[in-house]
Amino acid sequence: MDLKQYLKQRAAWVQDNLARNLPEEKAGGEILKAMRYSLFAGGKRIRPVLCLAGAEAVGGDPQKAMFCACALEMVHSYSLVHDDLPAMDDDDLRRGVPTNHKVFGEGMAVLAGDGLLTQAMVLLTDPKATAGLDPARVLRAARVVMVGAGYQGMVGGQAADLLHENSEPDLATVQFIHAHKTGALLTASVESGAILGGGGEEDIRQLVRYGRRIGLAFQIADDLLNLEGDPEKLGKAVGSDQAAGKMTYPAVMGPAAAREEGRKMADEAAGIARRFGPAGEPLAELALYIMARTH
Amino acid sequence: MDLKQYLKQRAAWVQDNLARNLPEEKAGGEILKAMRYSLFAGGKRIRPVLCLAGAEAVGGDPQKAMFCACALEMVHSYSLVHDDLPAMDDDDLRRGVPTNHKVFGEGMAVLAGDGLLTQAMVLLTDPKATAGLDPARVLRAARVVMVGAGYQGMVGGQAADLLHENSEPDLATVQFIHAHKTGALLTASVESGAILGGGGEEDIRQLVRYGRRIGLAFQIADDLLNLEGDPEKLGKAVGSDQAAGKMTYPAVMGPAAAREEGRKMADEAAGIARRFGPAGEPLAELALYIMARTH
Repeated sequence: MDLKQYLKQRAAWVQDNLARNLPEEKAGGEILKAMRYSLFAGGKRIRPVLCLAGAEAVGGDPQKAMFCACALEMVHSYSLVHDDLPAMDDDDLRRGVPTNHKVFGEGMAVLAGDGLLTQAMVLLTDPKATAGLDPARVLRAARVVMVGAGYQGMVGGQAADLLHENSEPDLATVQFIHAHKTGALLTASVESGAILGGGGEEDIRQLVRYGRRIGLAFQIADDLLNLEGDPEKLGKAVGSDQAAGKMTYPAVMGPAAAREEGRKMADEAAGIARRFGPAGEPLAELALYIMARTH
Repeated sequence: MDLKQYLKQRAAWVQDNLARNLPEEKAGGEILKAMRYSLFAGGKRIRPVLCLAGAEAVGGDPQKAMFCACALEMVHSYSLVHDDLPAMDDDDLRRGVPTNHKVFGEGMAVLAGDGLLTQAMVLLTDPKATAGLDPARVLRAARVVMVGAGYQGMVGGQAADLLHENSEPDLATVQFIHAHKTGALLTASVESGAILGGGGEEDIRQLVRYGRRIGLAFQIADDLLNLEGDPEKLGKAVGSDQAAGKMTYPAVMGPAAAREEGRKMADEAAGIARRFGPAGEPLAELALYIMARTH
């Protein structure tokens, strides 16, 4: 399969649907502007693509998981807005443009993040978008997304990351932070897609295993890019993790061993995906891409 | 009916259920501590009580709406944590104790708010808590809560409030801010309760009308308390709205006319509730209490 073409097409679908789900409104005011600013600032739309591919892998129609794919991107976008705040990572640049609080002010950026997170839930409970689906499955998928986003997932990982800045790096803490901060929502993306695609319990269980592995590979790749990536391709400065004394895989085990570990995880994930046959091929290719990406 | 006794009993139910839904956990770490700090810092639990009373008014079992009542309190609690941040209202004291960011730091307070908002959605999609309910009604109630909380509701009102600090007060802006910042979630509380209580469309429509009126009365009462309340009873300083140049009803029309308007709204709301007969009596009493309260 042509992964580049696949990613381009899926990202375009997601873009269209996001635009329809959070349209410009005259009455929307500054808050909607701030929310749209970050949601439409680009990005690879990896989480939505994983959700759609998860539905496909179990034999479902990816279009039926589209509302959930868009909700996942809203959750991701909110997390970046809050993560960039001065009280958190204090970043001025994201995807090559000024961060939300640099443009709209700190208070508005807090609210824009809150608005995006809430809108994700509005979308997950949209009667039009979920028409024709079993409401019990919709509820289950929504819960998976929110557990992945909450204090037992992404928020918990962010909190641990914040608390351990400038602590002595150790493997157990790095693993906890990675699994929660990035891994939980990536896993939830595939899992919710599989649920909405009508997957059986064993299929869902296998795709959760896939998700954990790509979550880890994704974060290792991110850490490596922050350490030795090309700032132009990344659209942001590199070296910030090291400067902030962040707990990362390369910091704990060195870049070479970290790369090795990331590749191992990606390979294992691809192997799990391939057991789904041709329907699992996109997930397999995505796993390898996630580790090999340059931005 | 004995409203004081009623409120006390309902608040105790809610307290019990909140404690069960966000229990202390050894592995929960600092983030769970920060979330629980604000969720269990007291408060009148007005939104949950309104939700339970909404279910009751339409002949439903309030216990079946309990998960939604607790989710509403989590949403309310998150909004206070973010509202108190230095980039927002910059308050040091809330309900007589230091605000979240004063205790846990600003970054952790952002995350604690995010965690509470996300946990509300986890609760709204809890298969155990919603067992026996029609999943389509659960989805509808969850959506009502989240629309009330989002940029078309509470977040939108907060944003307008932030933008209009120190603008010349005008009635249209005050009405917009009040209806969104406080009114939307209070209305959603009664509406979601009515949905989960099995109410018909006309009942739900009437209770939304009720909700809009108490929302307005509640915010007017709040503004008046901020202007001329007793700091000891309130557990926070007064006069801060005036000092910050906030857009409030008393600022636009003077305290006497504002009080008049609030009483009118409360009376109208009580009238709507009484059409539900004895089952609507708690809502009627609550409407009058909301306007007459001293803290």
